[in-house]
Amino acid sequence: MTQIPISKETIDAIAKSNKIANPGTASIREMRKMIQDVEAETGVRYIKMEMGIPGLPAAQVGVEAEIEALRNGVASIYPEIYGTQEVKEQISLFVKNFLDIDVPTDCCVPTVGSMQAGFASFLTLTRYDKKKTKVLFIDPGFPVQKQQCRVLGIEYKTFDVYDYRGEKLRGKLEEMLKDGDVACIIYSSPNNPAWFCFTDEELKIIGDMANKYGVIILEDLAYFAMDFRQDYSKPGVAPFQPTVAKYTPNYVLMISGSKSFSYAGQRIAMMVISPELFGKECPDLARYYSQTQLGRAMIFGTLYCLSSGTAHSAQYALAAMLKGANDGSYNFVKDIHEYGEKAHIMKKMFIDNGFYIVYDEDMGEPIGDGFYFTFCYPGYTGVDLLNELIRYGISAISLDITGSTRQGIRACVALVLRDQFPDLEARLVQFHKDHPIAK
Amino acid sequence: MTQIPISKETIDAIAKSNKIANPGTASIREMRKMIQDVEAETGVRYIKMEMGIPGLPAAQVGVEAEIEALRNGVASIYPEIYGTQEVKEQISLFVKNFLDIDVPTDCCVPTVGSMQAGFASFLTLTRYDKKKTKVLFIDPGFPVQKQQCRVLGIEYKTFDVYDYRGEKLRGKLEEMLKDGDVACIIYSSPNNPAWFCFTDEELKIIGDMANKYGVIILEDLAYFAMDFRQDYSKPGVAPFQPTVAKYTPNYVLMISGSKSFSYAGQRIAMMVISPELFGKECPDLARYYSQTQLGRAMIFGTLYCLSSGTAHSAQYALAAMLKGANDGSYNFVKDIHEYGEKAHIMKKMFIDNGFYIVYDEDMGEPIGDGFYFTFCYPGYTGVDLLNELIRYGISAISLDITGSTRQGIRACVALVLRDQFPDLEARLVQFHKDHPIAK
Repeated sequence: MTQIPISKETIDAIAKSNKIANPGTASIREMRKMIQDVEAETGVRYIKMEMGIPGLPAAQVGVEAEIEALRNGVASIYPEIYGTQEVKEQISLFVKNFLDIDVPTDCCVPTVGSMQAGFASFLTLTRYDKKKTKVLFIDPGFPVQKQQCRVLGIEYKTFDVYDYRGEKLRGKLEEMLKDGDVACIIYSSPNNPAWFCFTDEELKIIGDMANKYGVIILEDLAYFAMDFRQDYSKPGVAPFQPTVAKYTPNYVLMISGSKSFSYAGQRIAMMVISPELFGKECPDLARYYSQTQLGRAMIFGTLYCLSSGTAHSAQYALAAMLKGANDGSYNFVKDIHEYGEKAHIMKKMFIDNGFYIVYDEDMGEPIGDGFYFTFCYPGYTGVDLLNELIRYGISAISLDITGSTRQGIRACVALVLRDQFPDLEARLVQFHKDHPIAK
Repeated sequence: MTQIPISKETIDAIAKSNKIANPGTASIREMRKMIQDVEAETGVRYIKMEMGIPGLPAAQVGVEAEIEALRNGVASIYPEIYGTQEVKEQISLFVKNFLDIDVPTDCCVPTVGSMQAGFASFLTLTRYDKKKTKVLFIDPGFPVQKQQCRVLGIEYKTFDVYDYRGEKLRGKLEEMLKDGDVACIIYSSPNNPAWFCFTDEELKIIGDMANKYGVIILEDLAYFAMDFRQDYSKPGVAPFQPTVAKYTPNYVLMISGSKSFSYAGQRIAMMVISPELFGKECPDLARYYSQTQLGRAMIFGTLYCLSSGTAHSAQYALAAMLKGANDGSYNFVKDIHEYGEKAHIMKKMFIDNGFYIVYDEDMGEPIGDGFYFTFCYPGYTGVDLLNELIRYGISAISLDITGSTRQGIRACVALVLRDQFPDLEARLVQFHKDHPIAK
């Protein structure tokens, strides 16, 4: 096995063979492939923090239900485009139990991942009013969502919320919305990449702005109930996962099955449309759809022609997992708590060795320990730091590609195994020693 | 149970309560819902021919493989966007064995049904050359594909091929393509709704036109190997499923898992891109994609942001079914032959009672017996005939919504059970008696 730090020449040669000009700016996919080659070449077992994918097994109650559904013959039967009755009912119950909002089953639809929910939302929500054609991203965010807008030819605006937390958010949103051309706003909370969470005060501000400007909020709840500073695990019992839905009827929620239930492989998520929005009559939709009611255009117009539904058996899996969550027999939060525990340990190692957390607070309170965290090192840009860390057997992605204006790196804890913690600590100690911080 | 024919008043009242102005023009979904209500009201067990869905169980080899994959933990693992290695290899082998074409695994990608393959193709293929922005539909066809173009804001042209079979197709295509603004041509063969099949002569004409005008052919092979006039079931042995791929390198094939393998519920299909097209460098793609190579734009640009792949377990199902087909252990054609046998019996009942087949020949040869057939009755438009047949406990859809210029009805045999054949015959006999044909 090669000694750490690995030589720059070794890394550069492998980057070159992968057609990567600068590893520090590599995409997630590029980084993963390059690191596989470095591992093969050097024998170093990497601390891999670039992939935002589950590091836990899929919820067993889901798997069992999916298998039973397949045995019962669902594979030959097209699912209804609006979802099975059971999954719709369980989604409606779930958002009542865990978000404390009332949404009829008509407004609850399974989608092929939040990816499809987002694509369908961008497509449909930038057409319901011909004056409102743009998307506003509250960054940092998930880069693929901007790719969706580019592929669809949808213009978007962005800003990094780092300097606009709390009441400052109001003025910034006013500035971005005042031209009246924004159709929808998207953000994730807990946030990918930065793991900050909007406070209820901030969600109210966003809701106020949605109401004032008639903008639809696309709330990406991919890390549902994963702010482990609170216990959101008890169905029907406060505290509830915070949501903008408490503050405005202009919302579409995307609740992924990928992280909260570790069901990423099956491509199943929930789209929850506010009943007011669902029933909204929008004559401008007639330019593209035979339906002018927003919810029906979304389902029978957009979702239908995107893929004619999700895998049928995956809807049974989702229904079973939600049912378990709803009746309390399946504590999905407990299963995923492991991410928070690992993050706690890993963050301390970084901090003890001169690193600092970039997005570190929600209005004065330290952010939670969860799926991601962001870090940097004094005197380094995110890209330069990443290039250097790669030599120390640590990989991740820089914040540059997320729309963040801060220097730093996104770390995902999911694929770092606990038996790698001694390696991680040793490498951070060595990095710290090799890179003294100028006073 | 109500006597047949059911009174017009009864039907009209139920149509009204379903907000259907004219049942003869109802969509598939509307017809299905209305007939459910009529059955409930009257006790009549309908001959239901409106839904083009499998009437057979899913291929068992697929179901077993999918269950095993779930037991092995794939539900928590994102599939690679370009597909599992196994499924890519099996698709490549499959198109060699059954279409006799050579396509590298890179160019073989699983999609969330042909629905997603079509959507992705329309989106990507109308951008690779900024002069080529339109889609040409060789009708009749599957109405949802036009809906996809409308939702995407893509202009399309259409013509009904009924009057342009054989050499006449060449001149018609020249006329439709000469403006140089067509990006791709789409058709299905065997055809939905009409079950005609293009001859090799016609496919060569289409291929010639693709080469002459630089147009991409989007060949919808949803009813793969289902022209039962030939035995396409033997891997690697002629005859092979006819394809335009023999005549032009400008092709994207969509091979659905829904009918040939009865795997409709799981939303899994194959997109096969010609290697020349896959590697084509298209600077105009840079307006929307970071990749300018057509195949990479399709996969990493479009397909990725549509849904980030298909259900992972469904790819294992597809790979297993293809493997069985490829090694000869699973004769998928034999399993679906039932459709052709039912069609043969049903068509004879219609013809013996004064009905005629609308799309009846491929260049002088009677069309095959398969999943669909089209029929009409002297003196009736398709819509009027359908309205009347509904009173006789028979439901279907009119050809109007398919882009056909002919009067008539599309019948799907899949959901008609053999024990209903006596009822079907009796009702057709009665219809014929009640509607004498004017000499």
